[in-house]
Amino acid sequence: MGDHYLLNLFGCDPDKLNDEKLIKKLLHDAAYCAKMTVLNFITHKFYPQGVTGVVLLAESHISIHTWPETGKAAVDVYTCGSNDAVIACSIIRAQLDAVDYNIEHIVR
Amino acid sequence: MGDHYLLNLFGCDPDKLNDEKLIKKLLHDAAYCAKMTVLNFITHKFYPQGVTGVVLLAESHISIHTWPETGKAAVDVYTCGSNDAVIACSIIRAQLDAVDYNIEHIVR
Repeated sequence: MGDHYLLNLFGCDPDKLNDEKLIKKLLHDAAYCAKMTVLNFITHKFYPQGVTGVVLLAESHISIHTWPETGKAAVDVYTCGSNDAVIACSIIRAQLDAVDYNIEHIVR
Repeated sequence: MGDHYLLNLFGCDPDKLNDEKLIKKLLHDAAYCAKMTVLNFITHKFYPQGVTGVVLLAESHISIHTWPETGKAAVDVYTCGSNDAVIACSIIRAQLDAVDYNIEHIVR
């Protein structure tokens, strides 16, 4: 059984949402602090704006898609075998300066 | 607004679930048939078994995690701007010979 958290962030800092290097570091930090094992990761910068990225984990994955123009980010933290997925969500939320958010937890 | 489909497959062919090359092709085929634009993709083969992979799309992502030992696969098709996400789900389900499945559609 795995835990899948679907996190939607609103009112984030647009500059941060548009910074591919920051998003890369953010994904890595979230995985590290949640004691997950990073296997590989890829990111992509859209022009004029937006970043998308995924970290493959031994425990599944973390993904993020950002829309700086509206301050929105959609994050998935899907883990099998980690109890710290919520920590990963909190780190991402805090580092992007989200004003508001909603989160859905699905057991699958 | 985006459409996120969480697809859980059961009773899949264990050999297919354990074939990294097949999973890679499957992700690519699903994206292609759903008229999505592939930006990049990564896969990882676990030992003794299991494959995990993600395709980054211009429209968001498709991910898959497989457990050949139980015939299970967990698939996410998250798209912004494509109406054909259900086609991607159907292709993956058919190609892995799933006996049973459930699917959840989340608008986010």
